[in-house]
Amino acid sequence: MTIQAWNAEIEQEARKYQNTLTKPQGSLGQLEDIACWFAARQGKHIPDKLVPHIAIFAADHGVTEEGISAFPSVVTTEMLKNFSQGGAAINVLAKQAAATLSIIDVGVLLDTQHIQGITHAKVCAGTANLKVSPAMTVDECTQAMQVGRQEAKKAINNGANILIAGDMGIGNTTASACLICLFTQQKPEDIVGHGTGINAKAHTHKVNVVQQALKRIQVQGIEAESYLAQVGGLEIAAITGFYLEAAEQGIPILLDGFITTAAALAAQQYEPHIQQWMLASHQSQEQGHALALKKLQLSPLLHLQLRLGEGSGAALALPLLQSAIALHREMATFESANVSDKDPI
Amino acid sequence: MTIQAWNAEIEQEARKYQNTLTKPQGSLGQLEDIACWFAARQGKHIPDKLVPHIAIFAADHGVTEEGISAFPSVVTTEMLKNFSQGGAAINVLAKQAAATLSIIDVGVLLDTQHIQGITHAKVCAGTANLKVSPAMTVDECTQAMQVGRQEAKKAINNGANILIAGDMGIGNTTASACLICLFTQQKPEDIVGHGTGINAKAHTHKVNVVQQALKRIQVQGIEAESYLAQVGGLEIAAITGFYLEAAEQGIPILLDGFITTAAALAAQQYEPHIQQWMLASHQSQEQGHALALKKLQLSPLLHLQLRLGEGSGAALALPLLQSAIALHREMATFESANVSDKDPI
Repeated sequence: MTIQAWNAEIEQEARKYQNTLTKPQGSLGQLEDIACWFAARQGKHIPDKLVPHIAIFAADHGVTEEGISAFPSVVTTEMLKNFSQGGAAINVLAKQAAATLSIIDVGVLLDTQHIQGITHAKVCAGTANLKVSPAMTVDECTQAMQVGRQEAKKAINNGANILIAGDMGIGNTTASACLICLFTQQKPEDIVGHGTGINAKAHTHKVNVVQQALKRIQVQGIEAESYLAQVGGLEIAAITGFYLEAAEQGIPILLDGFITTAAALAAQQYEPHIQQWMLASHQSQEQGHALALKKLQLSPLLHLQLRLGEGSGAALALPLLQSAIALHREMATFESANVSDKDPI
Repeated sequence: MTIQAWNAEIEQEARKYQNTLTKPQGSLGQLEDIACWFAARQGKHIPDKLVPHIAIFAADHGVTEEGISAFPSVVTTEMLKNFSQGGAAINVLAKQAAATLSIIDVGVLLDTQHIQGITHAKVCAGTANLKVSPAMTVDECTQAMQVGRQEAKKAINNGANILIAGDMGIGNTTASACLICLFTQQKPEDIVGHGTGINAKAHTHKVNVVQQALKRIQVQGIEAESYLAQVGGLEIAAITGFYLEAAEQGIPILLDGFITTAAALAAQQYEPHIQQWMLASHQSQEQGHALALKKLQLSPLLHLQLRLGEGSGAALALPLLQSAIALHREMATFESANVSDKDPI
């Protein structure tokens, strides 16, 4: 299945309608573009209100044994519990934006059966160390992508009309940095960031780990279609599948930060025009995110130096999209409100 | 009365508490700063939820006779009616952000007594043409400032803990450009913008009108304390008073765009540290707004090419502030959620 084209005719119709609303043309800036963007993708010149769903995919990373993260792997499991109890940033932000939230263990190291209210879809207990060997087998990668597709299907069946993926996985900025380097052909020095907050020495080491992983890929002559399994993560593969399912079903995607953008680049290998169904919520403080978004030709809405993941930046940007659509739907027109239109100067 | 100092000790306490929340320190970027900013101003290390009030001040401008706007003056009155009926952008955005809204005629040209649900506080029926004479008398300016102070008092008495001013007044980007040029000592070419959407020829003319007004000020040797009456507007004077009252009572202010920032600069003449009680919601597409914000040492939260006024940019940014505070108030701590804190690397 390939992705649908959005409706350019409806976009024109939406733009025309937008220009009848009681404000100078163009004075709502990017909000006008956003409303028309949704119109074109929903196929309605007055788009429906957003029904957002956020899915957080969690998994662990064998590369943590290299000492590339400021937090130990156990935090992935601990945070899963925190999500399930409503104490994490994404819980607060999802509530603020009236978004539903699901939490999926797609590859956490520890047993999580005792954690209630999450989806147990563990493909395997974390990846192998991507520096020295493939992170996953091709089969594991495919299974993880299927987990993501299932989650997207479920959300769409429940009525969601905009999908957000979030990530949780200690070590996943290292995997994402590898993917972004490979897909954008940038150097590790320009992509690898400080993740959850490592110092300069650990950062140099992290760059070195990524360099060695990339060298392995090069030496072994691995092709682009295998990058995700080779240096990705189970949650990143799940997010890739989640995005593919959304775009194939014609449902808009709101990207979060560094990890989800790595997954978007992976998804682009399967669907070269998938970015037409994506909006970028924010530009992360994580070095390399800007270059990854550039490759997708997406401009971020917010620049707030976020670097948390969990889908938090996307959830934070949701009210902007909701407002853009509410303005389009609810404002009076010059005619309905008896307001004089522009003078011809 | 002078403005209060914010509480630096409480800000430290808030920062310390912020660092116990279940996320890497600093990973919520500017949201962390915002939460601590409110803590310091409310004097509580866990700040109260925001109770926002938006007051839109409307007035007309004699300078419209110079042909500097794309819309006729009658639109000020028509939009007042539109506000009262809930059809304008600010009505939609106030509802989205759960903000209360009041509309004040402080100097509209036409009679507005037939418009219900607004505050009738007309000082006079529009200003004189600032190009050739003082826009207002000092007495009119003082009265308009009092109208603004009264609105702020009312909102604060009703429990508002963040105040937003919006403007409506055909011609008011010309008055604001004059004020910004005078307060920032910039040239009209660098400050005057396209307002509601004038063409290049009309823009050149608008620059010329501002130049002539500034020349009048210079030739007549008029001092800074009289700029507001000389080249301002009744709604701009009201907003100035509104901001002064808010800051003097220790209530945070969220700035909107070009017009409200001109009022903020006018308020700074009375209270040199007033910007310590202000946040900048967005950077307008109107040329010169960035320089005006720079003079106030404020960084805008949003860059969405807005240029509508009405308080719309501020209302749009409110959910970001609400989310910042909700995160600070509602997230679990490492201790309460049993999450392991950072490794020492």
